[in-house]
Amino acid sequence: MRIRDDVKQEALFQATIKLVNKIGFASSSVAKIAKEARISPATIYIYFKNKEDLLVSTYVNIKHDMSEAMLKNFNKNLPIRDILKILWRDMFAYSSKHPEYIEFSIQFSNSPFADLVVKKDVEKYFEPILMVLQRGIDEKIIKNVGYEILTAFIFHPIISLSNRKICTGFELSDKNIDTAFTLAWDAIKL
Amino acid sequence: MRIRDDVKQEALFQATIKLVNKIGFASSSVAKIAKEARISPATIYIYFKNKEDLLVSTYVNIKHDMSEAMLKNFNKNLPIRDILKILWRDMFAYSSKHPEYIEFSIQFSNSPFADLVVKKDVEKYFEPILMVLQRGIDEKIIKNVGYEILTAFIFHPIISLSNRKICTGFELSDKNIDTAFTLAWDAIKL
Repeated sequence: MRIRDDVKQEALFQATIKLVNKIGFASSSVAKIAKEARISPATIYIYFKNKEDLLVSTYVNIKHDMSEAMLKNFNKNLPIRDILKILWRDMFAYSSKHPEYIEFSIQFSNSPFADLVVKKDVEKYFEPILMVLQRGIDEKIIKNVGYEILTAFIFHPIISLSNRKICTGFELSDKNIDTAFTLAWDAIKL
Repeated sequence: MRIRDDVKQEALFQATIKLVNKIGFASSSVAKIAKEARISPATIYIYFKNKEDLLVSTYVNIKHDMSEAMLKNFNKNLPIRDILKILWRDMFAYSSKHPEYIEFSIQFSNSPFADLVVKKDVEKYFEPILMVLQRGIDEKIIKNVGYEILTAFIFHPIISLSNRKICTGFELSDKNIDTAFTLAWDAIKL
């Protein structure tokens, strides 16, 4: 799947996210998404094969956007803890700034459409992160427990902590975000 | 809010969960939920004031159910690590057994209806757990960082690791669940 640079396509992604978050996947028809984006339904089919393709592309596009935000200050020459701390802060900033993307992603991951994603398409965006984790494992700095457990403790807590609906008591200050990182690091370090 | 013991009410909770997971909050009308539960719409209003009340009650009921599952082997006389490990395993078992409840809860927490929950109604179910964490903080066994950070690292990773749609590579074996607990404990311990 190519991430095409196009104003109409971006408008369709935004309309899809807005509508799905508001009325859910089942009710979000191509016609309603077209109306929300102020684009004719016929035009949608120039870009996307069908509703499934539009939903999957929206999700993959969010993941691409998220990976770019996380990796913008990435420097593989730093010590592993410092690399992860920079990733952590940038992902926190991204999740706090775009709760609607996170909401869409969570809903999408729990929907039947999740099965339609080509996993490799998404994983390649996050490859530099997986390589850092692998280096940490090889250098006996990080626990050798598999990526799924590691990411569940490093990155998933950000999703709940940055969610203003769930974590009303967690103030999004630099100090609190740094404190939370200490727990993430203690979880995965050897 | 009382958790009333009633066959019809339970049928309504199950129908609500099933329908919301399938078609979303916006489209799940009282009429459709009634049809799904094979109960007349008029009867719903004996139990619940309106759709909002039904949705909120369903959520609170899941949280009650979850807390009972987590606390069924609770023994406050054990060392704190052992208490948490038992809670962890029982929550893992619950999340794996009832993905539909978890899916509903996540969607609910991200919906506008989440604002209608009386937080104290839910928190009281989990009070024994919060008391253990507080004891751990007081005894300088657990980091003094607030409940929201602690639970984001002890319990939230269970939600993603037990989700078969998200964590396809994490096998739900006793060994893997114990390994993941090590990371949870390392995150929060002093």
